[in-house]
Amino acid sequence: MVRFAVIGAGRIGSVHAATLARHPRAELRLVHDPVAGAAERLAAAHGARATVDVAEVYAADDVDAVIIGSPTPLHVEQIVAAVGAGKAVLCEKPVALDVARVDECLRAVAGQEHRVMVGFNRRFDPTFAEIHARVAAGEIGPLEQLTIISRDPVAPPVGYLAQSGGIFRDMTIHDLDTARFFLGEIVEVRAVGQQLAPDYAGSGDFDGAVTTLVAASGAVATVVNSRHCATGYDQRLEAFGPLGSLAAVNHTATAVRSSTATTSGAAGPYLDFFLQRYAEAYALELDHFVTALEAGTAPSPTLADGRAALVLADAATHSATTGERVLLPPVTVARSHP
Amino acid sequence: MVRFAVIGAGRIGSVHAATLARHPRAELRLVHDPVAGAAERLAAAHGARATVDVAEVYAADDVDAVIIGSPTPLHVEQIVAAVGAGKAVLCEKPVALDVARVDECLRAVAGQEHRVMVGFNRRFDPTFAEIHARVAAGEIGPLEQLTIISRDPVAPPVGYLAQSGGIFRDMTIHDLDTARFFLGEIVEVRAVGQQLAPDYAGSGDFDGAVTTLVAASGAVATVVNSRHCATGYDQRLEAFGPLGSLAAVNHTATAVRSSTATTSGAAGPYLDFFLQRYAEAYALELDHFVTALEAGTAPSPTLADGRAALVLADAATHSATTGERVLLPPVTVARSHP
Amino acid sequence: MVRFAVIGAGRIGSVHAATLARHPRAELRLVHDPVAGAAERLAAAHGARATVDVAEVYAADDVDAVIIGSPTPLHVEQIVAAVGAGKAVLCEKPVALDVARVDECLRAVAGQEHRVMVGFNRRFDPTFAEIHARVAAGEIGPLEQLTIISRDPVAPPVGYLAQSGGIFRDMTIHDLDTARFFLGEIVEVRAVGQQLAPDYAGSGDFDGAVTTLVAASGAVATVVNSRHCATGYDQRLEAFGPLGSLAAVNHTATAVRSSTATTSGAAGPYLDFFLQRYAEAYALELDHFVTALEAGTAPSPTLADGRAALVLADAATHSATTGERVLLPPVTVARSHP
Amino acid sequence: MVRFAVIGAGRIGSVHAATLARHPRAELRLVHDPVAGAAERLAAAHGARATVDVAEVYAADDVDAVIIGSPTPLHVEQIVAAVGAGKAVLCEKPVALDVARVDECLRAVAGQEHRVMVGFNRRFDPTFAEIHARVAAGEIGPLEQLTIISRDPVAPPVGYLAQSGGIFRDMTIHDLDTARFFLGEIVEVRAVGQQLAPDYAGSGDFDGAVTTLVAASGAVATVVNSRHCATGYDQRLEAFGPLGSLAAVNHTATAVRSSTATTSGAAGPYLDFFLQRYAEAYALELDHFVTALEAGTAPSPTLADGRAALVLADAATHSATTGERVLLPPVTVARSHP
Repeated sequence: MVRFAVIGAGRIGSVHAATLARHPRAELRLVHDPVAGAAERLAAAHGARATVDVAEVYAADDVDAVIIGSPTPLHVEQIVAAVGAGKAVLCEKPVALDVARVDECLRAVAGQEHRVMVGFNRRFDPTFAEIHARVAAGEIGPLEQLTIISRDPVAPPVGYLAQSGGIFRDMTIHDLDTARFFLGEIVEVRAVGQQLAPDYAGSGDFDGAVTTLVAASGAVATVVNSRHCATGYDQRLEAFGPLGSLAAVNHTATAVRSSTATTSGAAGPYLDFFLQRYAEAYALELDHFVTALEAGTAPSPTLADGRAALVLADAATHSATTGERVLLPPVTVARSHP
Repeated sequence: MVRFAVIGAGRIGSVHAATLARHPRAELRLVHDPVAGAAERLAAAHGARATVDVAEVYAADDVDAVIIGSPTPLHVEQIVAAVGAGKAVLCEKPVALDVARVDECLRAVAGQEHRVMVGFNRRFDPTFAEIHARVAAGEIGPLEQLTIISRDPVAPPVGYLAQSGGIFRDMTIHDLDTARFFLGEIVEVRAVGQQLAPDYAGSGDFDGAVTTLVAASGAVATVVNSRHCATGYDQRLEAFGPLGSLAAVNHTATAVRSSTATTSGAAGPYLDFFLQRYAEAYALELDHFVTALEAGTAPSPTLADGRAALVLADAATHSATTGERVLLPPVTVARSHP
Repeated sequence: MVRFAVIGAGRIGSVHAATLARHPRAELRLVHDPVAGAAERLAAAHGARATVDVAEVYAADDVDAVIIGSPTPLHVEQIVAAVGAGKAVLCEKPVALDVARVDECLRAVAGQEHRVMVGFNRRFDPTFAEIHARVAAGEIGPLEQLTIISRDPVAPPVGYLAQSGGIFRDMTIHDLDTARFFLGEIVEVRAVGQQLAPDYAGSGDFDGAVTTLVAASGAVATVVNSRHCATGYDQRLEAFGPLGSLAAVNHTATAVRSSTATTSGAAGPYLDFFLQRYAEAYALELDHFVTALEAGTAPSPTLADGRAALVLADAATHSATTGERVLLPPVTVARSHP
Repeated sequence: MVRFAVIGAGRIGSVHAATLARHPRAELRLVHDPVAGAAERLAAAHGARATVDVAEVYAADDVDAVIIGSPTPLHVEQIVAAVGAGKAVLCEKPVALDVARVDECLRAVAGQEHRVMVGFNRRFDPTFAEIHARVAAGEIGPLEQLTIISRDPVAPPVGYLAQSGGIFRDMTIHDLDTARFFLGEIVEVRAVGQQLAPDYAGSGDFDGAVTTLVAASGAVATVVNSRHCATGYDQRLEAFGPLGSLAAVNHTATAVRSSTATTSGAAGPYLDFFLQRYAEAYALELDHFVTALEAGTAPSPTLADGRAALVLADAATHSATTGERVLLPPVTVARSHP
């Protein structure tokens, strides 16, 4: 049984608490949130203790691992403190909003990087994971083109944008990790940003984007993003190679198809958002983390993966802002724990 | 070049005239219809002669083959006369509304049956024909269950019903032929009739039906019919065997899929009716007929197939009326010309 | 919190135990199975007590409700005993293999029928339930034709057949309940049985069947069954009315579509069997039961629904054996608890 | 009746000749090809005259309009000569391989531009045209993102590449026209080229590309191209706006879906190539041309459209070669004939 603390009792912390409750070999012991009521409500719902003092998390004898779901600016100090206290860490993405800060983190946990996993949950989605495995098995030959369409249902309030790091670091970063998951090292980035909704016009951020990534292998990934989508959370992907293609289509709540005088075979809208669409991914991500801890192996994606996705998000931000293509130096990150 | 006359300048005669115009080795020379204007209009559109006297068709030196698209009660006498005059015949279904009349026809053309083809056009539809060929090739193992859903878009006016022979002889007969095409000899028939639209209540006929056919092989075919379908002409079929299944889905006018706030992936309605849905089937049916004439082989489906489908339609009518299952004697029809 | 005992520690008992573990307002306290090891294993996995003596279930002060997942011949005596002991009951289908036995049960629990729910779980499947709700809301107009295709992935061993009651009481009964769920009172039944796999030839049972049901409303339901299906658990349904249709398509494990040199858009096989396909239905069924107990209302489907489905299964068995249509008298069952 | 000459008796000339044969108000009178046998074979098949002397086309009294399907380097001189001789022209794309040459053409036919139509046939494809019309009608709100996936089945021989103008002018140009058709004026172009097949490595050309186009409206189009596709001719498009999306899915030869032990719902491969996929588009393109001639209106797409697509292809070529984004000046082309 792996004993957990959850830092952050907001939306994503609640997802992790619920996922822990369903895992047969995991147990939630402690919930931290600076807002006392929030911590207590979540803790109570799962028979755990609550604290407003994050230091209690690091000090707790009955906590083996920490899931960090706090605001991004707190991630690095919490990772470092938890690892310093001997805890394993599963930290939500992004690790930080700038690469220098991730590098600080890497230096601070040097030798213990393998105790930290970054929450790029989509790698664990059964649909994406199946495509990844079938591509890896050679079913379509060497991957040549990857096309990702990734649209959120509703844009966040403009007030949220200031601390978000912008669309590429906040939203596209998931797709950038997916691109790396499939294509490996990326050497060129081009991006175009769009301001579609009226309130994005003066925001300094984008609510639409198209990012093109060239891999060292010569393969190209294209990512089409929008902050809004009337039909729901639009999450598609197509891997194309010389022998064929493998595509992920959207999920709907039920398997109903309706036909009327004007249409045929209409499914319902896509699942609403990430909590619904990636519910299984969160559970499988946790299972991977627990299993790695039990086995003493390094979970993945790693801090280095978190850093690499952020480097791509920075490059895309630069490209969308300046119109320039960004060439990336060859990657020489430290390898994960063997 | 095979030279044709078309008997009947109505809807189906016009289809055949247009199909002839597109066939590279067929030529329309003569159109007969008792309504002078109708014959002339159709003939003029295709550079052919018109006549109100059907005897001219049989007498015409420049006519090798006759397509019969007249009202059903005239079919047999026209088949017999045309064959007697040395013409080959492609006759629309049904051959007649009672089996005794078909038997008269068979006796009258004895020795020349192989000069007559019956227009069960669906056998030539590329989708159904592909499934038939793949089943025959063993792709799903021995056929065990065949499910046909066949619905017309709009019911004919009740006034039409009196001379139609009823839903089983008029509409289901196509599906009964399809069942024979896939399953061979049928030994048991059960049918249920429905009166769905208000004006069918006192009509003596049905506008909905479910027919179950047991084949000598043990396979079972189920046919679900309706005289109306809001979404268009609903023409589906599924062949099921121990190794898998092969299904025909509906055709739509374009390959557009629309997604909105309430639905995803909606196609347009089904193609409207048989002229659209089976346009290719009519052309391939004609090509089979022309090719057989050129080669001196017997086209198929034959008069015997026309008779067999009518026997099934009679059985279904009896079953739906009485509630009784109908057992059919083993088939011993004369085989087609070798 | 509703406290439960589960009777029967086999496959279906394990499903219910796992479902109970995930329900926030239900608790498993006791597991009974005549095989001591089986009861203990299941109880231990969920922190409950085990017993080989079923009387302990009825006597237990800390048990409010009993889920019966024992062999069918034991259902009635266990329902009666549990209700007599003041427990509410959720009993797996079928209630019994003959109607007389269900009637004994109804007499024995008279006045307490509303404390018994029958486990026709498919009514709670989100896909089927959505279609039912949309039909009830009038989206397609009055229901005219219901087509159910229901195929198990692999036939049970022939040795199982003797005590199964035959395909109609064992397998089709779910579809017969679905037909009643959509169409209400059924007045005519026709069925055809098939012996498809070689070992079914001398079995006295069928492994394929087509059942046609006529409702008092004039609507017709068609049920196509097979005990085997290469592609998995084939569970489809189409409701058709004058304004359109609503169809349930099969579920697959992931949303992957593959395209190769010979095919396009291929999904994976269907979910394997009922434990996978109806996992959500079991959870929603339990939730309905728990919510009804908490509210003091009568859960549904009722014992009367269990009886009605068995009457249809008997009629289908008779029809398939004799070739006769079966007419059913108007239903006059006692209504559920108000 | 509009009387036609076809210049070029190769593959595309044959398509046009066959399309003319099926049009009720068009007639093929003359076929020109420098290879005598080729011209004669095609002419004979359609009852037309043949000539190896292109001047005969311009001089022919019984020719109202000319379809140009010759090699690209000949297009401009043939357009100019035909227009000079009073003929209307339908010219295959691209008009030329460099913009200066198109400008020469525009100058030479000044005042008669409305007599020339450029063969961007995809605008007439019923699927694409339906999406265009529904977008124009406001069904999805203002168009925000257009995603085009366009892959040929098999790469042309490397020997062909030298005179092709490169992938963007030869293949992508169709998609660039489609982007303009949907988005109007384009102001920015970015492109990435790929060399996927081994024989493209030293070719100086690409066999894969991703092109991103920013419209003056702020909308973005993404075009993913490959010269090979195992599944056939991959021709998809998705228009996305705030109210939903409209997508074109691929066409297959039949409506068969197969299910096996490992897959479900598999369609056949996509239609093989443009002759199959766009057969209807060629017919509707011709009909538009004929109808415009009869009405004395200007057919569309125009020479200006041909020029604009070439400008985009040049920009994409430059971007893919240098890595730079290309900004385009505001468009100030002469408008079509009123």
